[in-house]
Amino acid sequence: MKIIIIGASGTIGKKVTEALQGNHEIITAGSKSGDFQLDINSPESIEAFYKQVGSFDALVSTTGSGHFGPLTSTTPADFKKGIESKLLGQVNLVLIGQHYINTKGSFTLTSGILSEDPVINGANLGTINGGLNAFVLAASIELEKGIRINAISPGVVEDSPGYFEYFPGHIPVTMDKVANAYVKSVLGAVTGQVIRIF
Amino acid sequence: MKIIIIGASGTIGKKVTEALQGNHEIITAGSKSGDFQLDINSPESIEAFYKQVGSFDALVSTTGSGHFGPLTSTTPADFKKGIESKLLGQVNLVLIGQHYINTKGSFTLTSGILSEDPVINGANLGTINGGLNAFVLAASIELEKGIRINAISPGVVEDSPGYFEYFPGHIPVTMDKVANAYVKSVLGAVTGQVIRIF
Ligand SMILES: NC(=O)c1ccc[n+]([C@@H]2O[C@H](COP(=O)([O-])OP(=O)(O)OC[C@H]3O[C@@H](n4cnc5c(N)ncnc54)[C@H](OP(=O)(O)O)[C@@H]3O)[C@@H](O)[C@H]2O)c1
Ligand SMILES: NC(=O)c1ccc[n+]([C@@H]2O[C@H](COP(=O)([O-])OP(=O)(O)OC[C@H]3O[C@@H](n4cnc5c(N)ncnc54)[C@H](OP(=O)(O)O)[C@@H]3O)[C@@H](O)[C@H]2O)c1
Repeated sequence: MKIIIIGASGTIGKKVTEALQGNHEIITAGSKSGDFQLDINSPESIEAFYKQVGSFDALVSTTGSGHFGPLTSTTPADFKKGIESKLLGQVNLVLIGQHYINTKGSFTLTSGILSEDPVINGANLGTINGGLNAFVLAASIELEKGIRINAISPGVVEDSPGYFEYFPGHIPVTMDKVANAYVKSVLGAVTGQVIRIF
Repeated sequence: MKIIIIGASGTIGKKVTEALQGNHEIITAGSKSGDFQLDINSPESIEAFYKQVGSFDALVSTTGSGHFGPLTSTTPADFKKGIESKLLGQVNLVLIGQHYINTKGSFTLTSGILSEDPVINGANLGTINGGLNAFVLAASIELEKGIRINAISPGVVEDSPGYFEYFPGHIPVTMDKVANAYVKSVLGAVTGQVIRIF
């Protein structure tokens, strides 16, 4: 299987890459790192990326960032920046990628716990994650040629200790559990699912 | 109570306005209709609107539009347009309005069924609605001074027969049920809720 991993150098992406390596052709990408560079904030950059890489069987996205800060001081510009990165960036990987992916291929995006179990500072990421979870459900009933799509929704992960203080009472999830959720989405058969790891 | 209704001239907004009229000071608004005009797509226009209207007790939004069309031909530009209108437009009514609203005031936004019960052509609206539902939950734990926030999520409504063919098997919801959900949010006490009318 030819598997593209956008964000392969990141905290989560690294472990997903390790878990999928071995039996597959893995293509890694990031804005600065990886086999190929692209900027998910730019539809033109995404299109150019797919043109270079050619057809593929699975796309995994472990990328995109959101605004993390108090609601009372969040501006429309702060909010929009996160929406354009983590939400529209990942949606555009699918809108454009659907025209390059092989029959029976799959898309696996990354949302997160904050849409259903909010923390202080998390309104932008919560909104983004809620949008992504709904997008995979809606897209799953329209994608053609047996193409599947799922979202992985992790809790705060054990390899991100810098975030723990913002998640009081949350039990960080193991990297093994998180990485395997991506394996399940890519090598399994479900579609339109939010795979919750928390 | 001083209640602002953005989208008061619309199919849903008309009925919400009727249901709240009588015992309250109602301020209606739209891009062309109503007591005041604003464009929810523009943060500057929203800010100018609140400056004109002054402090208030409740804001109801029954506005915002999304792209409705096949996923396979949806472009990043189509998708972004809906996100900027129905999602960011309504979020910005809150981000900016939190600085003008009275203590114990409330925000009531409109999402919709498509985030959880998708139909063909509905991926953009589903994503928007999922984002809005998550936003009200996340914002509810951060809004200060006892300010509340909820989303009303209607199914296709009986006064929109033009949409029925896109919702096979859906039973249109009565305007009475829908309008009363807004009344419950504005005059009741719940916060962080998605009030589902379907
Ligand atoms: N960490 C957690 O606890 C946690 C929990 C739940 C959900 N999540 C979500 O999981 C995803 C990944 O999180 P993470 O902590 O693993 O992030 P991370 O360590 O910051 O890694 C981000 C990855 O994305 C790439 N990237 C950054 N900007 C890009 C751009 N504009 N275009 C293309 N690639 C870009 C980076 O590579 P370059 O440096 O080369 O750009 C890197 O490989 C995010 O959506 C996050 O919200 C994380
Ligand atoms: N109809 C349904 O079956 C249904 C079901 C579920 C959810 N919803 C949601 O409910 C909301 C209202 O739907 P509807 O069918 O009642 O819509 P509608 O009949 O088209 O009414 C839209 C209202 O918003 C105002 N408006 C339009 N653009 C605006 C802008 N840029 N800035 C400020 N105001 C603006 C319009 O007034 P002007 O003409 O003066 O601009 C009008 O009052 C939408 O978010 C829709 O997605 C509808």
